[in-house]
Amino acid sequence: MSDLTRYRMTVEYKGTDYSGWQRQKHVPSIQQSIEEAITKFSGQNITIHAAGRTDAGVHATGQVIHFDLAPTKKPMDAFEVTKAINAHLRPAPIVITHGEVARADFHARFDATNKLYRYRIVNRACPLGLEKNLAWVQYKPLNVQAMHEAAQYLIGKHDFTSFRAAECQANSPIRTLDRLSVTARPYDNHGGTEIWIEAEAQSFLHHQIRNFAGTLQMVGEGKWKPSDIKTALEAKNRAAAGPTAPPDGLYLMRIDYP
Amino acid sequence: MSDLTRYRMTVEYKGTDYSGWQRQKHVPSIQQSIEEAITKFSGQNITIHAAGRTDAGVHATGQVIHFDLAPTKKPMDAFEVTKAINAHLRPAPIVITHGEVARADFHARFDATNKLYRYRIVNRACPLGLEKNLAWVQYKPLNVQAMHEAAQYLIGKHDFTSFRAAECQANSPIRTLDRLSVTARPYDNHGGTEIWIEAEAQSFLHHQIRNFAGTLQMVGEGKWKPSDIKTALEAKNRAAAGPTAPPDGLYLMRIDYP
Repeated sequence: MSDLTRYRMTVEYKGTDYSGWQRQKHVPSIQQSIEEAITKFSGQNITIHAAGRTDAGVHATGQVIHFDLAPTKKPMDAFEVTKAINAHLRPAPIVITHGEVARADFHARFDATNKLYRYRIVNRACPLGLEKNLAWVQYKPLNVQAMHEAAQYLIGKHDFTSFRAAECQANSPIRTLDRLSVTARPYDNHGGTEIWIEAEAQSFLHHQIRNFAGTLQMVGEGKWKPSDIKTALEAKNRAAAGPTAPPDGLYLMRIDYP
Repeated sequence: MSDLTRYRMTVEYKGTDYSGWQRQKHVPSIQQSIEEAITKFSGQNITIHAAGRTDAGVHATGQVIHFDLAPTKKPMDAFEVTKAINAHLRPAPIVITHGEVARADFHARFDATNKLYRYRIVNRACPLGLEKNLAWVQYKPLNVQAMHEAAQYLIGKHDFTSFRAAECQANSPIRTLDRLSVTARPYDNHGGTEIWIEAEAQSFLHHQIRNFAGTLQMVGEGKWKPSDIKTALEAKNRAAAGPTAPPDGLYLMRIDYP
C-alpha cells in the first residue's frame, strides 16, 4: 500500500508572463511554478497533472490539477497544503483557490467530463488600459447576433480539422462540441461592449477555441456570412477557416467531473 | 480671441505601478504619462486637469480630464487627437476611452455634479491570482447585509472628519453623501464572493472611501455593530473610525456633468 496522498486542486492564473501550462526548459511555466512551490515546503520533487494544457498567454480561473504527496514531517490537512503552496507561489499571479484530498485514482485530465472555456473580446474604438492582456480588442463594431448564429453550425460531433493547429498531437480530429454561444454586455461608459464566446465540450483540439474566435470575428465584421462557417468546417482544411485569435482573450473557466 | 481648443476626455488606467494621478518629481504619475504623450505628437507643453486626483495604486475606468491645445501643423479632429495620445501612451496601462471638443470654459473638476467610486473586496480564503492588485482580499467571511446597513448611517450631509485623511487639503470636512451601497456577487467556482462598496457624491475628502471601506470591513467581520458607525461619524475624530483600506480595491468609475 502506498503512503502517498493524492490531492485535487483548482488553480487560477494570469498567463501573460508565462510560456503556458507545461514545463519547458529555459522559460517560466505555470506547472513549474507550482511544482517548485510544493518542493519548497515539502522537500519532495513531484510532477503535477492538469486538466488542460493552456498555451502561452492564456488565463485560467478554474484549471484543475492532481498530484501525489508523501507525508510531510509535520502532518498537514488539505487546507494547510493549499495555504503552503500559495505562500510559496507569491508574488506570482498564480493561486490555488481550492484543495482537497482525492481518490488515489483520480485523474484531472482523464476523468474530466466537461470543460468550459470563455474567449473575451472587448469591442470598442481604443486599446485596453486597466485590463491590458486580459482580452482581445476589436476596434470595429462586431455583429454579435451573426457570430452567435454562425457558432451554432459548429455544435455537435464533427471532424474539426479546419479549426485544429498544425502541431496538434491528438489522434483524432473528431470532437463533440456541446455549446458555443456568443453574447454581449456593456464594457465602459462610452458604448464599448464585451463579447463572450463560451465553449463547452469534453475535450478540445489544440487552438480549437482561438481558431473559433478568429473565424467568428470574420463573421462579426461582416466579411463572412454565418453559413460560411459551415463551408469552412466541411472543408476539413485549416486554410479554409479564419486566423488564430491571440491568447490574451482565452480563459479556462471550469472543469466538471462525475 | 484664443486659438486654443479645449478637449474633454475620459481616461481608464490601472494605477498599480504609478504614484497616483498627480505629477510629482522622480516618480511616475498618470498625469505626467498623458502630458508627455500629448507633447510627443503636438510639440506643445500642456497641463491637464482631472476631475479626481486618485492616489497611488487606485484605478479608474471613468476619470475625466480637460486640457487646451493650439492648432497642430496638420489639422486633427478630436478622434484623431485621442488616437494620437493612445498611440504615444503605449505600452502603459493607460488609455483615453473617449475624446471630444468641449466648451472653452469646461472644467473637469469644478463642473462635476456627481462622482461614482467603487471599492472592490474579494472575499475568499486565498489571495488573488488573475486579478492581483485589482481588489482587496478578505479571507474571513464578511456579513454584507450588516455592512450595507451600517453604510446607510453615512448617507446625507455630515461632518466627515472621522473619515478624512490627516493630510486632506479641503477647507471643510462637510460633504453630502448621496449613495453608499454594499452588494455581493459570486467571484469564483468555490464560494468566493466579490463585494462592491459604491459611493456617490459631488465631491469626496481625501481617503474618504478607503476609510469607509476599512470601517465597513470591521462591521462585516462582526467586530462592530452596524450602528457603531454612527458613533464613529459623530465623534468627528479620525481615530474613532476604522483603518484606511488599501488602494488596490478603489476605482473611479464615472463623473457626471450637467
